[in-house]
Amino acid sequence: MSTDIPRVQLLLTGDELMSGDTVDSNSAMIARELAGLGLTPCRRVTLGDDRGALAQEIEALCANADVLIINGGLGPTIDDLTAAVLAEVAGSGLCEHPDALSHLKQWCDKRRLVLNAANRKQAMLPNGCTLIPNPVGSAVGFSLLLNNCLVLCTPGVPGELRAMLPIILERLRARFGITLQKDVLRLQTFGLGESTAQQLVMDNHPDWPGEVILSFRAGAPQLEIKLSVRRVEDIPLRDRCREWLDTLFGDHIIGEGDTRIAEAVINLARESGVTISCAESCTGGMIASMLTQIAGASDVFPGGFVTYSNSLKQSVLGVQATTLESQGAVSEATVKEMVIGALDASGADLAVAVSGIAGPDGGSDGKPVGTVWLAWGDRQNVDTVCLCWPVERVLFQTMVAAAALDVLRRRLAGIDKQSSYFDQRRLR
Amino acid sequence: MSTDIPRVQLLLTGDELMSGDTVDSNSAMIARELAGLGLTPCRRVTLGDDRGALAQEIEALCANADVLIINGGLGPTIDDLTAAVLAEVAGSGLCEHPDALSHLKQWCDKRRLVLNAANRKQAMLPNGCTLIPNPVGSAVGFSLLLNNCLVLCTPGVPGELRAMLPIILERLRARFGITLQKDVLRLQTFGLGESTAQQLVMDNHPDWPGEVILSFRAGAPQLEIKLSVRRVEDIPLRDRCREWLDTLFGDHIIGEGDTRIAEAVINLARESGVTISCAESCTGGMIASMLTQIAGASDVFPGGFVTYSNSLKQSVLGVQATTLESQGAVSEATVKEMVIGALDASGADLAVAVSGIAGPDGGSDGKPVGTVWLAWGDRQNVDTVCLCWPVERVLFQTMVAAAALDVLRRRLAGIDKQSSYFDQRRLR
Repeated sequence: MSTDIPRVQLLLTGDELMSGDTVDSNSAMIARELAGLGLTPCRRVTLGDDRGALAQEIEALCANADVLIINGGLGPTIDDLTAAVLAEVAGSGLCEHPDALSHLKQWCDKRRLVLNAANRKQAMLPNGCTLIPNPVGSAVGFSLLLNNCLVLCTPGVPGELRAMLPIILERLRARFGITLQKDVLRLQTFGLGESTAQQLVMDNHPDWPGEVILSFRAGAPQLEIKLSVRRVEDIPLRDRCREWLDTLFGDHIIGEGDTRIAEAVINLARESGVTISCAESCTGGMIASMLTQIAGASDVFPGGFVTYSNSLKQSVLGVQATTLESQGAVSEATVKEMVIGALDASGADLAVAVSGIAGPDGGSDGKPVGTVWLAWGDRQNVDTVCLCWPVERVLFQTMVAAAALDVLRRRLAGIDKQSSYFDQRRLR
Repeated sequence: MSTDIPRVQLLLTGDELMSGDTVDSNSAMIARELAGLGLTPCRRVTLGDDRGALAQEIEALCANADVLIINGGLGPTIDDLTAAVLAEVAGSGLCEHPDALSHLKQWCDKRRLVLNAANRKQAMLPNGCTLIPNPVGSAVGFSLLLNNCLVLCTPGVPGELRAMLPIILERLRARFGITLQKDVLRLQTFGLGESTAQQLVMDNHPDWPGEVILSFRAGAPQLEIKLSVRRVEDIPLRDRCREWLDTLFGDHIIGEGDTRIAEAVINLARESGVTISCAESCTGGMIASMLTQIAGASDVFPGGFVTYSNSLKQSVLGVQATTLESQGAVSEATVKEMVIGALDASGADLAVAVSGIAGPDGGSDGKPVGTVWLAWGDRQNVDTVCLCWPVERVLFQTMVAAAALDVLRRRLAGIDKQSSYFDQRRLR
């Protein structure tokens, strides 16, 4: 056991990584988790499913690292070679691991599948290795020592890797006596661009303390803001920085950790005893889908309406034919009538409606591709806005669905301020 | 000049690639372009901005490759080290390259910027190297020979790399006299597991020809099957293998290339002049969303209904209160009435309905989490099935939504056979 910072290398395997069919997001996931222990991989090698090359590489990597994390090659097919190659390099041979077999049997039973030869191959592991349980998938991970290098083998399926990483971190912490921690506070926001957010912080807080590392991760539709400190004694400083962020763009902050915007909406609605519905044209079901991906959505969401055609906007939501004829389907009058229709047809207390032009076709000079009208409110008070997101179809739908949820979130949270992204996105 | 297949390795550099802040999509871009020449990188190394480690790695890589593509480290900042390290390894020294300087001057002029010292550093290149023009950015690329290995240095900004790749391919083609191509046929399937598909192929075609490389890429909800050959003369052999696959699991094949299941449904519906609708409970809008993510969905999809509560199932779709009371919301009778309701309310010719238990709560002994009833059909003929997918909530919704689209696809394509995944997934 050593208290020095261990030298970590990564080996990624898979023909799909070499052919360009798959973009490797796993090594970034591993690196972000290792950062929590204050570790950064110093080198990463990526190889196809080639037995000889893998064996040679593993030997070379182990000679030059304290930890080798291997990702991929644990699946049921013949091109999944990790266990066989490691058994060869370690000179240990393969054997059927009883705990791995029982995991596979349970996994198949739960899915009402019969354990076949391909599945059974996943229980053949190097003699003497230690299992790393896989809480979500069939492939078990395993670890072993090779020339005093701790080799940890993990599955290539991102969800399975994610589920296994806490166990791996715990083993690293134990083996290397790591007490150093990184304390990370993550904030989820909507409606802020990465560069805008960074500029705002720099302009308003030129004295930002060096002990509090500020970083951003742009996703669609959310932007994550991360505040990290390396020492427990810097946590109060971190909390002060968080207050600065609250002041700068508090109305954009959805929540901490992994909070999704739909989750925030559902929680706020539940707290206020309010039910919600939606009437969707251009988002085509995505608002409803984002809501119902959250467990417990049924507490506040009786349902929604995907009225893609004008005819359904009339028959289901009671939009007037004259409105559609005179103003068009993408208009303030139409989305207002859609909100009222959704409230009436669902019996919900609060509803949002969207109608826009997702593209690639269907735009015009006055209403280019990316134009969208949103309306939201209750029976007394309906607000509207016209925005423009001239981006690729599915990204447009994603951003508009999130914006529709965000206007509900603001209404439920009692935020009167119109979102600043309205200004940037307003159709001029 | 050699007519053998050159051995290509990649070196990616940048601290942001090691920390997990950036997911490397550049190597996939490079690999996809190289595939057009029949080339696959055999190995890829990723390193941080560490001068000593870079020098050592470049020497080792060149000793073992015909081509080394280096990506990153060409920018204006002090942590951009590629040119300096290559000059050191080649023993050539750095000099200000006149064409690079004139490119930088023009680039600054165009943007009304003054050429500063940081920009000017980008013109300092190894003596004797050949420029690779950058049509979009400030950083020029360059190539040189190191121990008979062709080293090509490219910028890390994805847009700049993309713009530079055609020039690089042309140099590779010229140097190695490449006429060889790789021909890849990709098939999209639904309802097959990776291990089941592989087992079926192995059992039925033990004589599968080595010239035709079979590989799988499991995604949710689709499984991609790839058939590749390296020589034009093997294409007929590949086509014979494709016929084998058609015989083995033709009804699971959605289409070629990137075809998504919703796309196949929309195309089939358009060809048959049929309109479709959906009534969703547990999928909560995901079926509608998958359909409307495809451009042109409005041709065949007037809209759908997210009836999450029992009350909306009654008021919007006309499901009988007695049905819900006696059979429950997750029952054959309910989904049948939902289909009829969706047909009536939408005016569509064909509809699908789903009701199930997405979890994590809400299961019972008779109807565990993962249970789902599907019904689909027209006014004359409604089919039903009860399946069980006991997986995480969003994956459950994704698989059920895809299954709902798949039963529509089979109906529209006139496939009478019930899908084989019905057998594995049937609730017993």
